[in-house]
This record gives sequence, C-alpha cells and structure tokens, in this order.
Amino acid sequence: MSRVAAHRCLLLVVAFCPLSIPPVDAADPLPSWNEGENKQRIVEFVKSVTARTSRWYVPASRRVATFDNDGTLWSEQPMYVQLRFAMYRTHRLAAQHPEWKTLQPFKAVLENDKAALMKAGGPGLMTLVAATHGGTVEEFQAQVAGWLKAARHPRFNRPYTDLVFQPMLELMAYMRANGFKTYIVSGGDIEFMRTWMEKIYGIPPEQVVGSRLKTRLEIRKGKPVLLRLPELEFINNSEGKPVSIRKFIGQRPLAAFGNSDGDLQMLQWTTAGNGKRLAVIVHHTDQKREWSYDRQTSIGHLDKALDEAIKRKWVVVDMKEDWKVIYPFASPQ
Amino acid sequence: MSRVAAHRCLLLVVAFCPLSIPPVDAADPLPSWNEGENKQRIVEFVKSVTARTSRWYVPASRRVATFDNDGTLWSEQPMYVQLRFAMYRTHRLAAQHPEWKTLQPFKAVLENDKAALMKAGGPGLMTLVAATHGGTVEEFQAQVAGWLKAARHPRFNRPYTDLVFQPMLELMAYMRANGFKTYIVSGGDIEFMRTWMEKIYGIPPEQVVGSRLKTRLEIRKGKPVLLRLPELEFINNSEGKPVSIRKFIGQRPLAAFGNSDGDLQMLQWTTAGNGKRLAVIVHHTDQKREWSYDRQTSIGHLDKALDEAIKRKWVVVDMKEDWKVIYPFASPQ
Repeated sequence: MSRVAAHRCLLLVVAFCPLSIPPVDAADPLPSWNEGENKQRIVEFVKSVTARTSRWYVPASRRVATFDNDGTLWSEQPMYVQLRFAMYRTHRLAAQHPEWKTLQPFKAVLENDKAALMKAGGPGLMTLVAATHGGTVEEFQAQVAGWLKAARHPRFNRPYTDLVFQPMLELMAYMRANGFKTYIVSGGDIEFMRTWMEKIYGIPPEQVVGSRLKTRLEIRKGKPVLLRLPELEFINNSEGKPVSIRKFIGQRPLAAFGNSDGDLQMLQWTTAGNGKRLAVIVHHTDQKREWSYDRQTSIGHLDKALDEAIKRKWVVVDMKEDWKVIYPFASPQ
Repeated sequence: MSRVAAHRCLLLVVAFCPLSIPPVDAADPLPSWNEGENKQRIVEFVKSVTARTSRWYVPASRRVATFDNDGTLWSEQPMYVQLRFAMYRTHRLAAQHPEWKTLQPFKAVLENDKAALMKAGGPGLMTLVAATHGGTVEEFQAQVAGWLKAARHPRFNRPYTDLVFQPMLELMAYMRANGFKTYIVSGGDIEFMRTWMEKIYGIPPEQVVGSRLKTRLEIRKGKPVLLRLPELEFINNSEGKPVSIRKFIGQRPLAAFGNSDGDLQMLQWTTAGNGKRLAVIVHHTDQKREWSYDRQTSIGHLDKALDEAIKRKWVVVDMKEDWKVIYPFASPQ
C-alpha cells in the first residue's frame, strides 16, 4: 500500500471567503496593530514556527492556536454578553417558574437588582445558564440567533457581535493564513458561541470549545433529537481549559490567547510544551475606547495571570498603546 | 469590514501525503470495491452532495462523515484490539494490585480464563479499561505505541494496524478528496485511537472522538500535566455517539458508517437530518478472508441495526460480495 501511495498525494485547494473576516495583507498582516515590541514578537513567533528553514519549524498539522472569547475577542463589560442573554431568557421563562420570584439568582434578575446579581457571582451565573439554556439544540440556537439580532449593547447601541476586536480578527486571519487551525476555548456555552462564531470569526462549529450542559438523546415523533438538560456538565474555565483542549483537540496548542485568570492554566499548559510557544494576554487599558480593568474587577478578573505574564515574559497587549482601533465599526475603510 | 474583505479571499493549498493512505484514482476512486449497487449508491451520494448544480448540494464546511472503528475500519475478532491491550496492561500492573488475584474481571485476565472474561462482558471490559489506561497522556500513548509495535494478531501474525480494511481506506480518502471531513466516532478510548490513527487512516487527533477517562490537571515539578484518572467519564457508544458528535463536531453528519448495534443511534440521527444523507453498515459475511457474524455474536453484535437498515434501505456492505480485498497486505500491488 505504502509503495502505491508514496508517489501520489492528495492536493486540496480550499477557498475560504466569509464576508466579515478581514483579508490578510502580505505587506502588513496586522494593520490595526501599532508597530512595537508586541506586534513584532507575535509576527516573529509565527515566522519562526512556519519557516521551513527555521529550527523551530512545526508542520501545519500541529499548528494549533486557542483563543479565549470574552474579553479576548469581544468586549465583556459592563457584563458578559451571555449573562444578558440568560437574563432575557429568565424573564421569558418566569411565568413557567413561579418559584423564581423568591429564589436567587432568579429573583435578582426579575427585580433588576444588580447588586444581588453581582453578589451571586460565578455560581449564580452558572445557575442561570443551566436553568435557561435547555431544550433541543435547534431551539436553543434559534433563541440565541433571534436575541442577538434584536439586542443592543447599552453603551454603543449596536449588536453585541459588532463589539469584536478588529486587531484580533486580523490576528486570527493572519494565523490561519499561516496554516494555523484557530480554536475558541472559552467559558461561554458551547452552543451559544457556535450560533454566531462562524459568521463573525470564520471559526466553524467543530473548532468552538466551551462550557457544556448535559445532553440526552430522545425520540420525538419517531425521530431522535438531542435535548440539552438544565444541568451543567462541564465548566470550561481555569483547569477546565487544558482538560478540554486535550479532549477536543488532542494536542497542545502552539499559541494561546486570553485576558483573565480563567486563562492562566491554558497559557501555562501551552507554554510548558517543547519548542517555541506563544502566550498572549489582552490587557484592558483603554477606558476611553473600551474599558480599563484588571485586578479589581470581578468580570474579566486579571491578577495572578498578569503576575505570571510579567514573570514569564508573555506578550501583554496594551489595548490603548498597541491597537489603532478597537472595533471594526471604528476602522478606517 | 465586509466591504474590504469581499473582494479578497484566503487561498489555502494543503498537500497531505501520509505513506499509508491510498491515492484517489479519478477513473475509479474505489478500486477495491466490486461494481454493484452498493458501490454505485455510495458514489452517487457523494456526487449528489458535491456537484454544484445538484439540488442536494452541500458546501464543503458542512460535509462531515463519521466512522465507527472496531469492525468498520479494522477487524474486531476474535476480540477487540483494545481489550488485548487492556489485558496486557493488567498483567504488567498486577504486581501493584495484589487484590486483582481474586477480583473479576482482573482474575480472569491473570488466569487466562476466557469464559469468565466473556461473562464479564461490556461492563467488565470498561472496568479493565478504567483500571489500566490511566497515567499522564504522554505515558499512556507511549505504552500504546510500544505495545502496537510488538503485538501480533493471533490469526494473521501481523501488527494489528495491518488489519485495516483496504476498501474503507479508499472510501475515506475518496470522501476527503470530495471535501468531506472524516471523523472517527468509536467506543474505543480516545487517546488509544489517537496514538495510531493519523498514520494509518490519515485522520488527525482533533477528528478522533472516543470513550473518555476523567482527566485532571496536576502540577508536577512546577509544570502542569494532564493526568488520566482510573475512572470512566463517558462511554462513546449507542446514544453516546450522537451526543458526542454534537459536542465535538457541532453539526449532524451527512454520512455515517458503522457495523453494529452500537452504531444504530448514530445512523438514525444522521439520516434524520434534512436533504440527502448516507447510512452504511459493514456486514461481516466473509468467514474465509475475515469473519462472518452478526446477530449471534457479543463482539460486534448486529441485530436491531440490521433490521433498521433493511427497513430504511441503508447501504449494507456485504464484505464477501462487495470487497475485492479485505486488507492492504492482500492488495495487488
């Protein structure tokens, strides 16, 4: 068999042209990035693992890059987008759940009590997600798509999917143009993210990894359907990220991108691999164009990972200094 | 952004030439398949979803094909290959587990008591797997690779990875040449399979989905490592297959291939989708060149899925009639 195959190869030519993804300019693949050490380090990393003559060369089948989503690829302030959706769903479902009137964190949502909602924290958010994200996968994705179409960001009065970071869109396209497979590895719900990421990021469903609800196969009207149960199966954050990457992708990333302590283990595990690795933290430093936060915030909390980044000389992107624009709608056309 | 992107596209050219994968001959992409209705139905399905002018056309990003492994892509008789490995590991680990001398199914393995082992059945096999497949992912894959190199199939006296089905290798290469992404969706352990499938099938780790052990991130000598625990997390069989496909791939396959009742739900869920779908069962009918079994066997039990295949007119491959050769080593060179 091998003798027959050795002198013939499959040649696949794949043309990929989603409308929302920026093209890659060979002269400057990252036009929204200011010149400087961070941009230079990223470009040099990509060159060093893709140039055939480089001692750090890695074949394309091993070029995996993983990206956190909230705060890394789109804005997460003043609250996670998916939390907004969960709140919307809580209102929609409230009539079926009279017990929510007196039960936290539902009560806080229904009474619009932000202090109580913030107090419920991460566990509260997970309770909301589990209770409001169930049903068949098709139903759920239709709910997400409908909501995203109508909802507007409170500060910018635009669809949430407009609040993606132009420099990161360029970076993902640049890495794909250099043979990288780009994956999302985020704490967000896996099917919530799959609803819109292919169109907005050019990342297909099979490259989106997130938190999961328990899912069961049921027969309805003689046909099998997949039903998401109101029960969390896996929270894809912190230690969960390397565990999920190994499970879904089966290899260690060459490069990983995050913005908070929930990304620390992913960045540590990535950089613990052999050869050249790249770890990048997006540091929110631009109060004027976006937000400025790190150690003091509960959403996008960045403390230990910032210390580690400084200690290990990871790339810490300074949004204010490094990025010419934040959002695509602010880009010069 | 979209205006800038619309007139420029990424063009990726991927040359993929693993040594063991057969080339695709445009004149006859399936040379090891005898002419007949089954071959014709498979080829017509592929043409109907890939021809741009077809009313059943599906874009490449939605061309997903899922393949069971044991009995569908390689021989599973007289016993699952992974069960052989688990038995080998049981012997190797026995000194550390004196309790196994009196505890089933370990006792059966250590005393080479095949009747008792068969009696332990599926749950017994799962107990063996959980107890013998732990450790770091790197350690485990090194154990699998070492064993596969040395072990020989009792009937053919060849490495187990020689006992793959030549017609199925051709079929997978043919589908990939037509833009399909080929996935393994098997009851076998996910990391056991990833150890060898890229070389033998041309399927990369991220397209291999299998049963999973619980996995934990640990710090060893200051570095994070992923440790597989001796505890099953998910059995990727029957209802588990559609659940895993949705989780890992995020879309319903266009085509699915299996050989036993453990594949029934995957085939049902695949064919419950819109448009053209293909469901194929490999029926073991060749006692002389391979094995002949279906309703009466415990390994590769095919009963309900065979009834369903007949009722729903799925393609039932008759190995004896449809395949010119079974194994690559028997191929005319």
